[in-house]
Amino acid sequence: MSVDVQSYMAERARAVDAALARYLPSESDPPATLHKAMRYSVFAGGKRLRPVFVIAGAEAMGGRMDEVMQTACAVEMIHTYSLIHDDLPAMDNDDFRRGVPTNHKVFGEAIAILAGDALLTLAFRLLADNFAAGSDAHALRNVLIEIGDAAGSAGMVGGQVADIESEGKRVGAETVDYIHTHKTAALIRASIRAGAMLAGATPSQLVALGLAGGNLGLAFQIMDDILDVTATSEELGKTAGKDQAQQKATYPAVHGLEVSRIHAKALVGEAHAALQSFGPRAEPLRALGTFIVERKA
Amino acid sequence: MSVDVQSYMAERARAVDAALARYLPSESDPPATLHKAMRYSVFAGGKRLRPVFVIAGAEAMGGRMDEVMQTACAVEMIHTYSLIHDDLPAMDNDDFRRGVPTNHKVFGEAIAILAGDALLTLAFRLLADNFAAGSDAHALRNVLIEIGDAAGSAGMVGGQVADIESEGKRVGAETVDYIHTHKTAALIRASIRAGAMLAGATPSQLVALGLAGGNLGLAFQIMDDILDVTATSEELGKTAGKDQAQQKATYPAVHGLEVSRIHAKALVGEAHAALQSFGPRAEPLRALGTFIVERKA
Repeated sequence: MSVDVQSYMAERARAVDAALARYLPSESDPPATLHKAMRYSVFAGGKRLRPVFVIAGAEAMGGRMDEVMQTACAVEMIHTYSLIHDDLPAMDNDDFRRGVPTNHKVFGEAIAILAGDALLTLAFRLLADNFAAGSDAHALRNVLIEIGDAAGSAGMVGGQVADIESEGKRVGAETVDYIHTHKTAALIRASIRAGAMLAGATPSQLVALGLAGGNLGLAFQIMDDILDVTATSEELGKTAGKDQAQQKATYPAVHGLEVSRIHAKALVGEAHAALQSFGPRAEPLRALGTFIVERKA
Repeated sequence: MSVDVQSYMAERARAVDAALARYLPSESDPPATLHKAMRYSVFAGGKRLRPVFVIAGAEAMGGRMDEVMQTACAVEMIHTYSLIHDDLPAMDNDDFRRGVPTNHKVFGEAIAILAGDALLTLAFRLLADNFAAGSDAHALRNVLIEIGDAAGSAGMVGGQVADIESEGKRVGAETVDYIHTHKTAALIRASIRAGAMLAGATPSQLVALGLAGGNLGLAFQIMDDILDVTATSEELGKTAGKDQAQQKATYPAVHGLEVSRIHAKALVGEAHAALQSFGPRAEPLRALGTFIVERKA
């Protein structure tokens, strides 16, 4: 089975977009400003990579997209909330994201903070809502803990703290690894595993998917660092070269561009190896790995 | 059964404090600054009113404190995150809370935002962790949805939006009711109901407890508004008279002190009526209602 990764992603992203539009509160319900701000950032573009990973994780176990759609949308809401808060003046102070003004530039800082808070809260509500009466609490508990750990102080938020604390400092390979693993890879890893959990993965399958997911997530962030150096602002939809200007801890800054590229490819190779036993069902996950290192934006 | 509400609250608050200390990440684990900031605000005082309501809700159904402790702590973490974010310069811009400097005054704005985010995330993880293998997913789902709705855009966050948008404006009784019901009462109501749900409350019992909880929550906030006018800063541990200085939408501003007092007492009376059928087990809940309108700080 060969997968056209572009159309695979586009089809799933379309379905995710439609579901997000349903799950997000309406702009006509009060508080209208808040709901407008939540929708603004969720629909400000984006590849829907994390939801696609939730779906691909489920598919690797023979699961179906519609069975994990709420979880997929929840993960995208968590990702979006983190972007809104990261862009705030007190953090990265970004005016543009994906080619449009950031949330606080449009709605003000107070609403941006609250829109992020509300998206995070709604995400967990959605994760729970996925479970109908009579289902096993064990699976629900495991998915919540998986996502909660990946998003929390020992995961994504922890990575953002290290990122902020490293700005302007000369940091080593270990710190960059910590930041990337926590800030980016943790939630991508959890996305794949959560999708697979919902589709009945065994503990040993989850270990393999965790290994693959961690590698894919880290490779994705390394490529992001590389593209920040090599791509144009137009291609990226955000200011290129910003990492260097902000003295961010990045892979190219520590290892150079060439070694960073080799490392990203090696990580995807390891992910492919970890996925071997899953057979043709994991073809989308493998194709996503290849996409990650070959993408131009 | 008569309840000494002061010692009832003090005993439970002590148990909650001990549990919070266990559930919060250690300051020696990375990222240390973040974990320090999380603990700082959780342990900066506070009556632990919401956790006590979770426990009293469970007790009204014959449940035990230890069975709902994770849920009780989760609700306190949600409350604490909301205070940290509300105090930010972009929101209420408060320098002191409960007699000590606010989170962002000690740790800076970026860490304060992230500490709030991490507390909210940890809260949902804790809610899930309360459920052991084999328990009913239905109850877990219901508790998560109860708390998620109360904390989200149609609950607490929505109330904070309305609060901010009303500042400096002349608002009417309806707006103040909206703010208080959403910003404060929703989470108190959900606390009582979540505790009762975990202890096996029936749908009709949950309706009665919801009615009582909504009234107690609103009465609590009205008394908070009243005390902001009548108590000293020393008694409150925060700057008294701040509502008026910030032109906040409050009950006394709209209805006057006397009518506000009468209204708070009437709400507690209605709560007591809703609790009638629960018998002596709901005595702590009733005593908490009386405490709410008789407290001096």
